[in-house]
Amino acid sequence: MNYDLVVIGSGPGGYVAAIRASQLGMKVGVVEKAELGGVCLNWGCIPTKSLLKSAQVFEYLSHAQDYGVNIEGKASPDFGAMVKRSRDVAAGMSKGIQFLFKKNKIEVIQGTGKLTKDKKVEVTKNDGEKVTVEAKHILLATGARSRELPNLPQDGEKIIGYRKALTLDKQPKSMVVVGSGAIGSEFAYFYNSIGTKVTLIEYMDNIVPLEDEEVSKQLERSFKKAGIKVMTSSEVTSVDTSGNTVKVTVKTKKGEENIEADIVLSAVGISPNIENIGLEEAGVQVEKGRVKVDEFYRTSVEGVYAIGDIVPGPALAHVASAEGIICVEKIAGVEVEPLNYGNIPGCIYTSPEVASVGMTEKAAKEAGYELKIGKFPYSASGKASAAGHKEGFVKLIFDAKYGELLGAHMIGANVTEMIAELVTARKLETTGHEIIKSVHPHPTMSEAVMEAAAAAYDEVIHI
Amino acid sequence: MNYDLVVIGSGPGGYVAAIRASQLGMKVGVVEKAELGGVCLNWGCIPTKSLLKSAQVFEYLSHAQDYGVNIEGKASPDFGAMVKRSRDVAAGMSKGIQFLFKKNKIEVIQGTGKLTKDKKVEVTKNDGEKVTVEAKHILLATGARSRELPNLPQDGEKIIGYRKALTLDKQPKSMVVVGSGAIGSEFAYFYNSIGTKVTLIEYMDNIVPLEDEEVSKQLERSFKKAGIKVMTSSEVTSVDTSGNTVKVTVKTKKGEENIEADIVLSAVGISPNIENIGLEEAGVQVEKGRVKVDEFYRTSVEGVYAIGDIVPGPALAHVASAEGIICVEKIAGVEVEPLNYGNIPGCIYTSPEVASVGMTEKAAKEAGYELKIGKFPYSASGKASAAGHKEGFVKLIFDAKYGELLGAHMIGANVTEMIAELVTARKLETTGHEIIKSVHPHPTMSEAVMEAAAAAYDEVIHI
Repeated sequence: MNYDLVVIGSGPGGYVAAIRASQLGMKVGVVEKAELGGVCLNWGCIPTKSLLKSAQVFEYLSHAQDYGVNIEGKASPDFGAMVKRSRDVAAGMSKGIQFLFKKNKIEVIQGTGKLTKDKKVEVTKNDGEKVTVEAKHILLATGARSRELPNLPQDGEKIIGYRKALTLDKQPKSMVVVGSGAIGSEFAYFYNSIGTKVTLIEYMDNIVPLEDEEVSKQLERSFKKAGIKVMTSSEVTSVDTSGNTVKVTVKTKKGEENIEADIVLSAVGISPNIENIGLEEAGVQVEKGRVKVDEFYRTSVEGVYAIGDIVPGPALAHVASAEGIICVEKIAGVEVEPLNYGNIPGCIYTSPEVASVGMTEKAAKEAGYELKIGKFPYSASGKASAAGHKEGFVKLIFDAKYGELLGAHMIGANVTEMIAELVTARKLETTGHEIIKSVHPHPTMSEAVMEAAAAAYDEVIHI
Repeated sequence: MNYDLVVIGSGPGGYVAAIRASQLGMKVGVVEKAELGGVCLNWGCIPTKSLLKSAQVFEYLSHAQDYGVNIEGKASPDFGAMVKRSRDVAAGMSKGIQFLFKKNKIEVIQGTGKLTKDKKVEVTKNDGEKVTVEAKHILLATGARSRELPNLPQDGEKIIGYRKALTLDKQPKSMVVVGSGAIGSEFAYFYNSIGTKVTLIEYMDNIVPLEDEEVSKQLERSFKKAGIKVMTSSEVTSVDTSGNTVKVTVKTKKGEENIEADIVLSAVGISPNIENIGLEEAGVQVEKGRVKVDEFYRTSVEGVYAIGDIVPGPALAHVASAEGIICVEKIAGVEVEPLNYGNIPGCIYTSPEVASVGMTEKAAKEAGYELKIGKFPYSASGKASAAGHKEGFVKLIFDAKYGELLGAHMIGANVTEMIAELVTARKLETTGHEIIKSVHPHPTMSEAVMEAAAAAYDEVIHI
């Protein structure tokens, strides 16, 4: 088999690159050992959002009377049905990729791909058969897996990663979540909201430690209010799985604490899948556990490219997709700019939601900027009041000298949809006054963006 | 009493202007005959959104099992509780204005304001007492009321306007809504979703006739699917209120039809409040039923200004606020640009939601543009699937020659929060490729904006 481009891995990096390459006239093959769509579609972004939606609906039911709706009897979560819905949504999306591949005449080679010494791809099929695929360009997009800590070995039963957390047979009565990044926080929120007793353990001083500190603090308040036990500056030193439950020993600032739970979810980040994909054989350089690439994702070996979780940069689906598009556009000779890694949004789909782009206040100060900061609380937003979601705020950080929007940090309902405005505004090199003078529709939560910008320049109306 | 600025009317035009003027150092008084916040806060934007949220929660409850949530008995809407919540939210917001006025040292003069011949403001208090207020600048922001059609005289009992529709004593079994603009469509959606039998009558060929035709058609499909009887190209010729119900005679393309309902809601637009405010006495020019103003809202009489529903332009809260700010900034000598009326978003908070800015496809064609149009359906959005909201689309219209974004038309969940991105992007003179190359977070519905732009340039990935 001979292709213009062969992609190893069909996650949001690989499948998007494949489709764009096909649009640009290349003959494309994709090597995939599991489900089309990779972790994102099958075990990440999509099925988690489905579970979180179920949790949201259950929360509305639990507060139905606040909105003037009566329920006879009680509402209860049907964990099995929630998981089934989540699997169905994921399966539907994966089928969608199949459809897109057919439409774009992309061939799928089922099996495990590996670079060879002579720059071909050897695919080992599930039955052990090996085929060799040739291509002018080879794109590595093998993604990542749940990172394992030595103190927290995943047994897939009591100590689990995100995959198993999506498909548990029954709802655990209690759960310890280790790590409060997006994945840990989302699962902590989900399981807590359907009635599991949840303890969230974070090594750093704040949960969601990559976010602006004010956002972290607000989310911690919201989590505690919702009943989650939050332990920051804390570390799991050992686990004992010998009994019916797991006994977790946690080192805190105040000393040691022992917690017992049905399940421990390890959510301490990811490990890039760079093993056994032929990097050594083909001589592809690796640096600090990631494949070394230039700004157009060319590795040290000509004709071999890498994108997504296996290269430096945030391990996010939308980053992988953007890298994939840029990579193949460059190959095809399209005029294309390198990705601006300073303008990548991040979202956490808890309730309240979290979304951000650019520098935190701390990072901006450390970078030496003089700042103008504006903050607008949801409690002053008419739409937030009408919706019954008064928790949260929008915080915008401007460079005082030139008015550049350095960072946007939001927590509250709908912020994961609102952050796109700031990403685009930053792409277009906005100033605070351009945001203030863009008429935002009333009543929306997006007005909080306009008001936060106005607050930075002492022109805010509603506080 | 002597002020730098006196504002007549404390709606979203007046109160925002007052606060901004106070920030800019003016001594400000506001004349208000009813609740602070005007129609928007008390009888419009805010209480309707509260009712619509109740309807949304009720809809989630009715489909709880789809999300994996069980209810023992039945869910039922408590109309009285919904109305009470809505009134409480409105009252809370109105109190908020009171707080803001105090904070900004703005004095409220309770009563009905009227311009005098010698450019003062005569205020008639509720007990009949008259006081005269002097000011360097007088801003008229008296708003509007529900428009009455001769064939549809509002009696406040069986034939009502939006005010009464917010505070009916009991839920009507059946309702005819005349007019399918934002107000009519929102009430039709609300009452239908809590179980009232609703007929929506529109004179034009499409409902929400100001929107892009594809949006209108999609909303009509959604409304019909939800059980609303939609009659377009139809006109109420007479009403008979003599019995227990109202008998409505409707002229359609196919002939006459008679409909019986408990209540008829007239939602055929608004009439500006320009009567009895002293325009004639002071010599303020009126044109086509609106106060004539220049681009900084100066009327024909020096020192007298007008904003909001009583001047030309769309009768929207956010327009009135923007006008108010520009007007007082100009008075204060701030460098300020006139409002770009071509970049005003409009939102309809039904389910699916509708949001748009700029030219419709039809308008852009009529203006002679050669177009590049991109459309992305929610059915192809992972987030929309996960959320169970697959109805809707984003449609972007670009000028083929220079790449200018001429219009954005969206229907679906969350679009009222997503439209701000396009407003800001248009303010910053975006092109399609700048939107495509702004990395939108995954998985969000806002990706549909990026994909619609990509679709316009044949670069769309997911369809």
